[in-house]
Amino acid sequence: MARSRTACLFLYGVPENDADLLYLARFPAPDPILYFAKGSRRVLLVPDFEIGRARKIFGPGQVWGMQTLAREEAERRGAAFPDLSPAALALSALRRLGERQLEVAENCPVRLVERLREGGMRVSVHDGPLVPGRLSKTPSEISRIVSVQRHTERALAAAEAVMRHATIRRGYLWLGKKLLLAEDLRRVINLCLLEADCLASHTIVAVGDQAVDPHEEGHGPIRAGEPVVLDVFPRSTRTFYFADITRTWVRGRADPQLLRQHRAVFEAQRAAMRVMRAGASIRRAHEEVLRCFIARGFLTGERDGRLQGFTHSTGHGVGLEIHEPPRVGPVDPKLRFREGMVVTVEPGLYYLGRGGVRIEDMVVITRRGVRNLTRYHKRLEI
Amino acid sequence: MARSRTACLFLYGVPENDADLLYLARFPAPDPILYFAKGSRRVLLVPDFEIGRARKIFGPGQVWGMQTLAREEAERRGAAFPDLSPAALALSALRRLGERQLEVAENCPVRLVERLREGGMRVSVHDGPLVPGRLSKTPSEISRIVSVQRHTERALAAAEAVMRHATIRRGYLWLGKKLLLAEDLRRVINLCLLEADCLASHTIVAVGDQAVDPHEEGHGPIRAGEPVVLDVFPRSTRTFYFADITRTWVRGRADPQLLRQHRAVFEAQRAAMRVMRAGASIRRAHEEVLRCFIARGFLTGERDGRLQGFTHSTGHGVGLEIHEPPRVGPVDPKLRFREGMVVTVEPGLYYLGRGGVRIEDMVVITRRGVRNLTRYHKRLEI
Repeated sequence: MARSRTACLFLYGVPENDADLLYLARFPAPDPILYFAKGSRRVLLVPDFEIGRARKIFGPGQVWGMQTLAREEAERRGAAFPDLSPAALALSALRRLGERQLEVAENCPVRLVERLREGGMRVSVHDGPLVPGRLSKTPSEISRIVSVQRHTERALAAAEAVMRHATIRRGYLWLGKKLLLAEDLRRVINLCLLEADCLASHTIVAVGDQAVDPHEEGHGPIRAGEPVVLDVFPRSTRTFYFADITRTWVRGRADPQLLRQHRAVFEAQRAAMRVMRAGASIRRAHEEVLRCFIARGFLTGERDGRLQGFTHSTGHGVGLEIHEPPRVGPVDPKLRFREGMVVTVEPGLYYLGRGGVRIEDMVVITRRGVRNLTRYHKRLEI
Repeated sequence: MARSRTACLFLYGVPENDADLLYLARFPAPDPILYFAKGSRRVLLVPDFEIGRARKIFGPGQVWGMQTLAREEAERRGAAFPDLSPAALALSALRRLGERQLEVAENCPVRLVERLREGGMRVSVHDGPLVPGRLSKTPSEISRIVSVQRHTERALAAAEAVMRHATIRRGYLWLGKKLLLAEDLRRVINLCLLEADCLASHTIVAVGDQAVDPHEEGHGPIRAGEPVVLDVFPRSTRTFYFADITRTWVRGRADPQLLRQHRAVFEAQRAAMRVMRAGASIRRAHEEVLRCFIARGFLTGERDGRLQGFTHSTGHGVGLEIHEPPRVGPVDPKLRFREGMVVTVEPGLYYLGRGGVRIEDMVVITRRGVRNLTRYHKRLEI
């Protein structure tokens, strides 16, 4: 990473919610920490009680305790109480480090920057991605992501088994004497993932028209012949990497219209993947999906007051965030795929009265094309 | 909330990671949204595909779509591509709202504030808590928190049953032919919670000396007579409120020293609760714990290079964040409890070679004292 030789990089945040900080400090924590880096020197400031854990994980850098630092600073200044605010902690640490020139991330809290400037620091805001290296995944990052994807597929397989073994009576799916609910499938998926140390939030099991709102999580009974969109994107509680997969299933017979819709999504995904490789325009992949849908007569627009058709982007990066750059959508055509990017390819079509179909794989960009990190069949009828 | 009559409040963030935004917008989402409020007017700017879901939840305010707004703005300006950056979206929305004066939260990203100012906005940063109302919980918030606490207690009871039914052989706890591991207890707890639509992250099952790092999550086999600290703090995936409880258990016989340590923690918790009520000094509760420990000869300090004794604060607020104000610790003595605050009371003592003991309840502050929201026995030996 090329940095100014004179500025000290400073990050403040909750590592589990701030992927740059997590990437740099490698110290997952649910509470805010402070991170300083200049040249080869790295200092992590954590709550005192986290010092032991942080020293085990952080590696060669130094770990300081917030309470200790604040107490020593209060003694030095003759203050009655230690000041544990992030600005006071940062200023104390910077004084010790002998730094007066800082570089902060775009998302650094505005008040904190104001306080640092009031404290005599020269603060510049880093332009663009703070850690461009995050865009292309290393082989070890890819293997972490793949490991989560494998657990996700196993969880999906468990849900498929449940749905497949449901009986069809009076037009609905039943488990014994109880209606099979979207909630049942979600529970199976989330429990399987938890067993594998993966946390699934917002798992989507959207039945019929529920899928027209792509982030509606879905609920209630399932009709035979009705499409169910299952979108699962858990995070490993060990490595903190995400994975992402979507499939759409029908029990019983899908009508010809729905089969055509599913076919269009399947072909659109294939078409997008065909034009994806290191150096290719990102926008082009999205345009391939649009082209496919229009060629097959599947149009997008507002109808009955609701946006219908292909209503979202083709994909997004996956890593320490579930949605991270690059966005695979109608972006600047100059933006290009790079080797090692891990992205989803997830075209979908949603129409009121017919329901939704989405198929999502996760792929890694290579010099010659894509390597699909997903291993799961794409049949509609199960 | 008293606000400047001329400034429009503007928040940008991921609602699930930004409790103020979640509290104000009541729209949980894993992706960033923009929120504007002035007088009785409220506008939420969400990804287009979230419009339907947002309209169902957001209530009387208006919901706008990011992609639609960016597209219309690009057409208006004759730009080639829609600009979906938060600054561009905010400036477009503010133009439509006719606002030129803004108030932002302390944690607003610094780059976003710079861009808004470059775009001609007068931006002031709000001082202190943005939503002071969050400090005191309403009855309906309390009932949401209690509901999570009840699930947490049931999960803890399941883990207790497993530990209680383990057999003791060769000094260790066994389940049939396998060693009972901390990981097994964690799995039972997390699975129970997931069944109840609660997500437990970082559940602690710390065995013996592992508890000396209070956030070490714990692992491995459990010896008879060895204390196990179980700290469980899940979040409801429906209401997004947290709950928090800790118990310490021993299978077999605790030695007299450990019994004394447990007794001290138990008494310290009681002593703290006795001085907690609306209007009382927050610091006082923490000092009661310190006093209790010192009176019983349980000292705190660095020993063998590790901080031992009572190494953390007495408690913290619980709500839409797991750690939110007030901090119950060595704070400014002028800070006072208010009616409706929900806080933990969690003294603990940790010594290498003897292990840790922590007992944590969640209480609500009333005019006359505290109401304990926790229903679980505090016996050490099970």
